[in-house]
Amino acid sequence: MTPEMASPAPPAMLAPGTAIGILGGGQLGRMLAQAAAALGFRTQIFAPEADSPAFDVTPARTIAAYADEAALASFAAAVDVVTYEFENVPVEAVRFLEARVPVRPGSKALAVAQDRLAEKRLARDLGAMTAEFAAVDSPDDLARAIARIGLPAVLKTVRFGYDGKGQAKIRSHDEVDAAHASMRGQPAILESFVAFMAEVSVVAARGLDGAFAPFAVTLNEHRNHILHRSLAPAGLGDAVAARATGIARAIADALDYVGVLGVEFFVVGAGEGQTVLVNEIAPRVHNSGHWTMDGAVTSQFEQHIRAVAGWPLGSARMLTPAAEMINLIGPEADGWPAIARDGEAKLHLYGKAETRPGRKMGHVNRLLLHSPR
Amino acid sequence: MTPEMASPAPPAMLAPGTAIGILGGGQLGRMLAQAAAALGFRTQIFAPEADSPAFDVTPARTIAAYADEAALASFAAAVDVVTYEFENVPVEAVRFLEARVPVRPGSKALAVAQDRLAEKRLARDLGAMTAEFAAVDSPDDLARAIARIGLPAVLKTVRFGYDGKGQAKIRSHDEVDAAHASMRGQPAILESFVAFMAEVSVVAARGLDGAFAPFAVTLNEHRNHILHRSLAPAGLGDAVAARATGIARAIADALDYVGVLGVEFFVVGAGEGQTVLVNEIAPRVHNSGHWTMDGAVTSQFEQHIRAVAGWPLGSARMLTPAAEMINLIGPEADGWPAIARDGEAKLHLYGKAETRPGRKMGHVNRLLLHSPR
Repeated sequence: MTPEMASPAPPAMLAPGTAIGILGGGQLGRMLAQAAAALGFRTQIFAPEADSPAFDVTPARTIAAYADEAALASFAAAVDVVTYEFENVPVEAVRFLEARVPVRPGSKALAVAQDRLAEKRLARDLGAMTAEFAAVDSPDDLARAIARIGLPAVLKTVRFGYDGKGQAKIRSHDEVDAAHASMRGQPAILESFVAFMAEVSVVAARGLDGAFAPFAVTLNEHRNHILHRSLAPAGLGDAVAARATGIARAIADALDYVGVLGVEFFVVGAGEGQTVLVNEIAPRVHNSGHWTMDGAVTSQFEQHIRAVAGWPLGSARMLTPAAEMINLIGPEADGWPAIARDGEAKLHLYGKAETRPGRKMGHVNRLLLHSPR
Repeated sequence: MTPEMASPAPPAMLAPGTAIGILGGGQLGRMLAQAAAALGFRTQIFAPEADSPAFDVTPARTIAAYADEAALASFAAAVDVVTYEFENVPVEAVRFLEARVPVRPGSKALAVAQDRLAEKRLARDLGAMTAEFAAVDSPDDLARAIARIGLPAVLKTVRFGYDGKGQAKIRSHDEVDAAHASMRGQPAILESFVAFMAEVSVVAARGLDGAFAPFAVTLNEHRNHILHRSLAPAGLGDAVAARATGIARAIADALDYVGVLGVEFFVVGAGEGQTVLVNEIAPRVHNSGHWTMDGAVTSQFEQHIRAVAGWPLGSARMLTPAAEMINLIGPEADGWPAIARDGEAKLHLYGKAETRPGRKMGHVNRLLLHSPR
């Protein structure tokens, strides 16, 4: 057997004690660092903000801008692998790191997830449905797009949107100019407005060995464009749930993805006609997967760390028939005493010093013996 | 109603964001700090060793001797409440802190747990059975004790024993002198050798409000005097399990205990004659309670933090019919790759840089659908 024909060696597993670098110091980075510590890994957080919540759970930090190449180089030298906790990390920073240390998931997934056009084109290429869409770089583009797609529709910046930021709904032709102005000259995408029955997500992991482990499909309720509540399982029919999970797997495979990703879907139609449209791809652990911290054998955070470290994935099995997560947004976190008094409620707080409206301060999980749907 | 007759106010709950000081930087302190962070608390670790495992999971540390009053005073000023992770913290340090900041559990529990005579006398005073015992301060004491208790027996230092350290079994009169010499002049206790069927423990919490929440009684197997495996539930008859749990509650009440404690028992007899003898009281989270990290609604670490923070206790309900914990001692931790490949195994590693024989490096939990007994 020639070396070229040898079957590939199983991927090397990073040993406990090695260091995982995390770009981003928010609550996702914090919970990733906590999961890494439980497995005996050290972590180093790279974040621009000195008061990053993740800094409370590890002594190793780099406070620097993502464009600071000296800081990135030192960071790369100090860790054995790098991951990121949010999709707005500049791709350039990840490419700079990739030349020095493995980054999982890599810049390819990040670049696609940062570009709503690339995201939708990928989904379509994989045979998944999405809203109708068109690129909009000028008022003329927008007029043509509206003529084809119709109204209502949603105009979004192609890049750097989350929690409803950078979006403008266009209900009538009166609102076109204001919507276009709100894009502030950034490349945009017009999407048909989907009259969805529900929003669901697939949070799943792909290992370095290509294995795929999806958690139960989760039903998501938003308030003011911010996730309010997630319920797993989503209560979809088996075929629709399998379809959503299959799309997530195809996306992960296409991106050579390593780690946990979230794929958000709109559910449209009912009964036999029910199906899902891909809405967004998040190349990271996902808010709608927070229930797994208490409701699954392996949490999404441990699962991500396992994947990033080249470990086989853990079981994504649920521990109870259903689980619910409710976000604590802004002053909702002030309700912690009542939650603390509920001995069955699993409270998770992110250690954020300042409560601001719309800020994710924590969440509460509850394990359920029966799905409430 | 006069002020004196007013019903007491419910204890104040420490708010998330306040700081919990932990004396001791080993794996128990580490896991306490991790549980505290999940609830949004900050932690500060006080430990003499610069490479303490707990230092990896929080940025706030004090490296100083327990006799360093200046360091203790600064520590007290920096935190809102203090707890400890092991029973060999000097009582003087805890009393020094108690004058400045609440310490939970307090010096009373610590003093009793540090003194095998006080421990056994307390258990007897509460109506619990123990091995026969006698104080031994001289060769004459030892001769009298042996005459009364008989052989085989076990001679132990009254203070600072754990994991079989400071113990000498005396099988015959030939071994008496060597056993006495091994005490190195320290006050000792002779205990009758109990031919036990099994060793079990009750890990339970008592809240600041006096509430008591026991986890399922756990069956413990030791190897070389170090805990090897714990299984919950222990498979005792209901009456015996209730008896053990009731003794733990009586001990916690008698000590005005706040936090998690472990009470170790010998199981003797069989059938209707089966009963338990108190062996040791550990005023802290306990190795035999590590299964609760994955097998109970509330882990012993979260439960301890809740109690210390004045929060109501969480549910101690098991998530599955049974759970098993196996310690990874010394080089056993080198077997991590096989454990990592088992997606149902919950691996917990303590981040200890150096593997030494007998050193607790981590543990692995497994949730079981049926008790193996």
